[in-house]
Amino acid sequence: MRGESLGERLIFTGFGESHGKLIGCVLEGCPAGLPMSEEEIQRELDLRRPGTSIVTTMRAEEDHVEIMSGVFNGYTTGAPICLIIKNRDADSRPYDKLFQTPRPGHADYVARVKYGGFNDYRGGGRFSGRITATFVAAGALAKKLLKETLGTEILAYTKTIEAQDAGDMTIDMIRNQRYSNEVRCPNKKVAEEMKKMIVHAKGEGDSLGGIIECQTLNVPIGLGEPVFSSLDSDLSRALYSIPAVKGVEMGSGFSASRKRGSENNDVITAIDGKIVTTTNNSGGIVGGISNGMPIVLRVAFKPASSIAKPQQSINISTLEQEEIVVPGRHDPCVVPRAVPVVENIVALVLADHALRAGLIHNLMSK
Amino acid sequence: MRGESLGERLIFTGFGESHGKLIGCVLEGCPAGLPMSEEEIQRELDLRRPGTSIVTTMRAEEDHVEIMSGVFNGYTTGAPICLIIKNRDADSRPYDKLFQTPRPGHADYVARVKYGGFNDYRGGGRFSGRITATFVAAGALAKKLLKETLGTEILAYTKTIEAQDAGDMTIDMIRNQRYSNEVRCPNKKVAEEMKKMIVHAKGEGDSLGGIIECQTLNVPIGLGEPVFSSLDSDLSRALYSIPAVKGVEMGSGFSASRKRGSENNDVITAIDGKIVTTTNNSGGIVGGISNGMPIVLRVAFKPASSIAKPQQSINISTLEQEEIVVPGRHDPCVVPRAVPVVENIVALVLADHALRAGLIHNLMSK
Amino acid sequence: MRGESLGERLIFTGFGESHGKLIGCVLEGCPAGLPMSEEEIQRELDLRRPGTSIVTTMRAEEDHVEIMSGVFNGYTTGAPICLIIKNRDADSRPYDKLFQTPRPGHADYVARVKYGGFNDYRGGGRFSGRITATFVAAGALAKKLLKETLGTEILAYTKTIEAQDAGDMTIDMIRNQRYSNEVRCPNKKVAEEMKKMIVHAKGEGDSLGGIIECQTLNVPIGLGEPVFSSLDSDLSRALYSIPAVKGVEMGSGFSASRKRGSENNDVITAIDGKIVTTTNNSGGIVGGISNGMPIVLRVAFKPASSIAKPQQSINISTLEQEEIVVPGRHDPCVVPRAVPVVENIVALVLADHALRAGLIHNLMSK
Amino acid sequence: MRGESLGERLIFTGFGESHGKLIGCVLEGCPAGLPMSEEEIQRELDLRRPGTSIVTTMRAEEDHVEIMSGVFNGYTTGAPICLIIKNRDADSRPYDKLFQTPRPGHADYVARVKYGGFNDYRGGGRFSGRITATFVAAGALAKKLLKETLGTEILAYTKTIEAQDAGDMTIDMIRNQRYSNEVRCPNKKVAEEMKKMIVHAKGEGDSLGGIIECQTLNVPIGLGEPVFSSLDSDLSRALYSIPAVKGVEMGSGFSASRKRGSENNDVITAIDGKIVTTTNNSGGIVGGISNGMPIVLRVAFKPASSIAKPQQSINISTLEQEEIVVPGRHDPCVVPRAVPVVENIVALVLADHALRAGLIHNLMSK
Repeated sequence: MRGESLGERLIFTGFGESHGKLIGCVLEGCPAGLPMSEEEIQRELDLRRPGTSIVTTMRAEEDHVEIMSGVFNGYTTGAPICLIIKNRDADSRPYDKLFQTPRPGHADYVARVKYGGFNDYRGGGRFSGRITATFVAAGALAKKLLKETLGTEILAYTKTIEAQDAGDMTIDMIRNQRYSNEVRCPNKKVAEEMKKMIVHAKGEGDSLGGIIECQTLNVPIGLGEPVFSSLDSDLSRALYSIPAVKGVEMGSGFSASRKRGSENNDVITAIDGKIVTTTNNSGGIVGGISNGMPIVLRVAFKPASSIAKPQQSINISTLEQEEIVVPGRHDPCVVPRAVPVVENIVALVLADHALRAGLIHNLMSK
Repeated sequence: MRGESLGERLIFTGFGESHGKLIGCVLEGCPAGLPMSEEEIQRELDLRRPGTSIVTTMRAEEDHVEIMSGVFNGYTTGAPICLIIKNRDADSRPYDKLFQTPRPGHADYVARVKYGGFNDYRGGGRFSGRITATFVAAGALAKKLLKETLGTEILAYTKTIEAQDAGDMTIDMIRNQRYSNEVRCPNKKVAEEMKKMIVHAKGEGDSLGGIIECQTLNVPIGLGEPVFSSLDSDLSRALYSIPAVKGVEMGSGFSASRKRGSENNDVITAIDGKIVTTTNNSGGIVGGISNGMPIVLRVAFKPASSIAKPQQSINISTLEQEEIVVPGRHDPCVVPRAVPVVENIVALVLADHALRAGLIHNLMSK
Repeated sequence: MRGESLGERLIFTGFGESHGKLIGCVLEGCPAGLPMSEEEIQRELDLRRPGTSIVTTMRAEEDHVEIMSGVFNGYTTGAPICLIIKNRDADSRPYDKLFQTPRPGHADYVARVKYGGFNDYRGGGRFSGRITATFVAAGALAKKLLKETLGTEILAYTKTIEAQDAGDMTIDMIRNQRYSNEVRCPNKKVAEEMKKMIVHAKGEGDSLGGIIECQTLNVPIGLGEPVFSSLDSDLSRALYSIPAVKGVEMGSGFSASRKRGSENNDVITAIDGKIVTTTNNSGGIVGGISNGMPIVLRVAFKPASSIAKPQQSINISTLEQEEIVVPGRHDPCVVPRAVPVVENIVALVLADHALRAGLIHNLMSK
Repeated sequence: MRGESLGERLIFTGFGESHGKLIGCVLEGCPAGLPMSEEEIQRELDLRRPGTSIVTTMRAEEDHVEIMSGVFNGYTTGAPICLIIKNRDADSRPYDKLFQTPRPGHADYVARVKYGGFNDYRGGGRFSGRITATFVAAGALAKKLLKETLGTEILAYTKTIEAQDAGDMTIDMIRNQRYSNEVRCPNKKVAEEMKKMIVHAKGEGDSLGGIIECQTLNVPIGLGEPVFSSLDSDLSRALYSIPAVKGVEMGSGFSASRKRGSENNDVITAIDGKIVTTTNNSGGIVGGISNGMPIVLRVAFKPASSIAKPQQSINISTLEQEEIVVPGRHDPCVVPRAVPVVENIVALVLADHALRAGLIHNLMSK
């Protein structure tokens, strides 16, 4: 249990299902005095909204967020903040059949076993990628808290789609251009190519995966609580809660396994009286604790499981093989819409750790 | 806070420092009635003991475990189990200098900032890889609990050292041969090669990284608590708590990002009335929940940060550049000794989840 | 933090304010397969609804509960259950003045200090007794879970109002008559007297306190987790979360401090092969663990802080003394309405502990 | 589970049994930089040591504390602090018989059921009052932390033994005289009387109960996290974890239930620019949050269950009635030795809440 909560001091608790009345969350521990409005949250949420372009699902959800508690006269009150997003455009008809014939790559079968068949299977229920909208909504508060108090900035972007890599980019390019196109790749030319690849795969009834990189700037030294709430531990835990994630690496990551110590160790030096490293193979985390360098991590997404192509599965009553075609409207590639999800779940983890480390200064001056 | 504990129902709490009196842990929630002795724990612990071969550190710790509570008449009692390992062979002299000139790749500097210089810096203190011995000691109980009640078997091994891959192997090879050589690679011929590489790097005063793969067999369907205690979330969190880990991937992992959905989706079928998948790209986890297939994960370790070669750092008082040579006795490659650590921390997570899911049958029949 | 959650396996998380949009809660960990409807929850909730009789506040809230998630086709799904109760009849006008002149006995001043003046002070905000409606709503599920799986029955009633005691009663009287009158005292004659006392105090612009006793029948042996989640620890923690509670005692309680050991010890015997005690001074809990006897506890409520009489307070800006008259509509005695609150919060604690002890059998048979 | 831990930010985790190798605890979250020595902890511990006077058990434990981790060069390091107390004078022989014939008032039978007979029953095992020594040891750190950073002072004393009340006393009397006699009653004359009563009861093979009052001075405003970690909730939970506690009340407590609101409400005023109340019926806690007035609470202890007089119990195998005489050496009244236990467990809760509220200033200046 305690599976629906994230964080120790800034605590996210989620609820809701893909085709139920709503999805929502409760955010406990946000300090009092943070200016916040539905509009601000909505802006963040709009970045992951479905139905906005050819590369994403055609489900036309408005994803309109409502603040139900914890904000008063335009400021957070210190009380739990409940955010809800009502569901509107759900088409649940196809799912009754899928209850008998589980979709490959989905949680249909395991959920049925775990919950004795009582789970709300419509649209994947609680296992739907749709619930990540609540990560974004709550993350908007965490992001603002970090920005206002520590100047921390979180920048995620699509690094690869299939084998296509975004290539080298400056921070300014990432900052300014990542949301300027549908695939959320700051390199516009590569973005065009990625878009073509996704459209092409969609045309074939197939789907693509990719990698999101996230760089976080202006991180104070000292975030992370040894041993099991080390910063990489908690980031990784949170990132793996995003559906379709199959890998998480920090700094030089898997490539570190092929380097020598003399090559991978970051030389410590001082610039303008500030202790820094000349390289950043650590990805800003040593011994599980932030060292003040940018936190760099990468998240691997599998190709979306819902594809239009016929697939083999079985009828779980008869155990006979059946060919199924997954109906409904789905993303041919979840990576673009996952970019704001990664940013905001990283924000939730970092804000929680900043609070745990006592580094969020007092907002209260009323 | 709450950084020193892992698990919700089987709860590991650690303590101790590398060069203090001891390292130890408290394991809460182990069901009463599990037969257990110091000898059984010691056998597991001996697999990671330092000083046993040329490829590991020369620090000659016996790593002798003592059960201090929670076991009575040879059985667990249901009360918290305290395990301790006294430190014996610590040489703390070199560390006073390192307190001023932090070692590249280590937590020296961040720990100093986070704890205001009060941290026990000798041997890395609480940040030492030595504390993973307590993961192994407690994991021995978790492993046995899983084995006795569910037949679950956890098999980790050295998959790569630098670019050298172990190649394809059968489960039987992994099961029987992984601890038959110093590098813990089941492929004996490759193991020889890996050993040479490590010895060679050591000769150059350098270190190597590598990848450990872990396969877990006989996992019941239904482990994992959505959303944030999904099984991959909790496994990843625990694995990132092992020092030197820079990447964790599940199933097809990062390579999934380069596959098509039609290729990466595992076809669902039934064999002998049991629902299985024909491939295992999911690595045994879909929607964050075990699906009964083997759990397959890989963990990337960076090359050990402590190397004999001179390195650049700074004196943190004067901020002047200094060349340091890390003294002490260190592993030129932590991967071989990390194999039992990975196995046992996976055991701790899975046993916790089996208890959370209510799948551990009653041991109590006295 | 983590102040808004109760329970380890059945986890209640609350949100909402007295005069905001709503009050609500998320209940995580309720097993899948429990039949549940809004009507069932509403029946429980109606027992504490305000505005139903002369002895309670005239605020005319319908307290209409809505299930927003976690129930599908009439059964719990295993996913988090979100329940909300919208606010309708709030009159917030008087509270702006009270923000400057805190009400004696209320949290007005401490909340202002703790939250820097950003707290939603209208109607007491998050400190209002109104939030106990969410305890009742969620408790309805816990109560049913206990009843259906263990036959556990929870019976609270008004034991005293001021010095007036309900006297001796049979369990059948308590079971059948506790909700038969406005003061929730099973002894009808005493109830009449209590009602007169409350009406009289109200007429004087004053308020009364009292004691609620709660007896829980058919409790399995073994609930309670030593040391800090002993059953009395967790019950007491939960009961003290009800506003106006100033004392909690178990079994012979405070009177035990005046008894001899030979008198207070309950003789152990067997009746029809079942091990029981001949007396129940322990109140069904020994060593923090249920012993199968009825759990008997008493909760002392102070007289309601909101009274019509003029009271002395200060203007917190000028620090000058001011006489205030608390406006609004308030209960002259919270005890009658607290009876279902006590029952349901006890249900939440016991259901959580039954799940922790592995004593809730599987509901899933679909 | 999670039953062995107390606190969110200052986290106590206990282990050990009455007649095992040791009892101990791990304290996580104590800020780095607190000066601490074994001698300081020992001084606190000596106040509850058994075998020191006629009114307590004759078991002659030295109760010698050892700091095993988390303290370095005389200061806390920020790492978990492990404290152990080895057992020396245990006489386990009588307990084999008691395993068959459970002692009235003890946890023998419920523990046997809960743990399937695998529990370490010697001396009550984990249910022994002996484990409260670890509360005192860890509490010594919490007490010092509170004293050094906030000036908070915690004063408990024996208020009643049986019906004998300590009467009115000044704070100075309580502060200076509470540990000046064996019964820990600041009123020396009453203390003499209480001592006689205990000796007399002991002579009759019986035991006495009593009430401890605890007053905490210099508490900052704002401790307590609504709703379920309200300060009274968390204090009560912790106090009920002390064996033999049957009641906890705050401020006017149970007597509040017999007062009018106009009488029980504390008038708010200002003295020397500080907002205070003229009376303290709230006991320093309103709405679950400290209001800066002294925290006043009372804890009712039942008479010790272990008495020399023959008692009725049953053989749990044959279910036949048996008369038993509890052997061993026991306290005829646990109240005097519980005084430092109450003080220190209150310290643990308050220090945890001070950390949660961000009110512990930085100790780190090295």
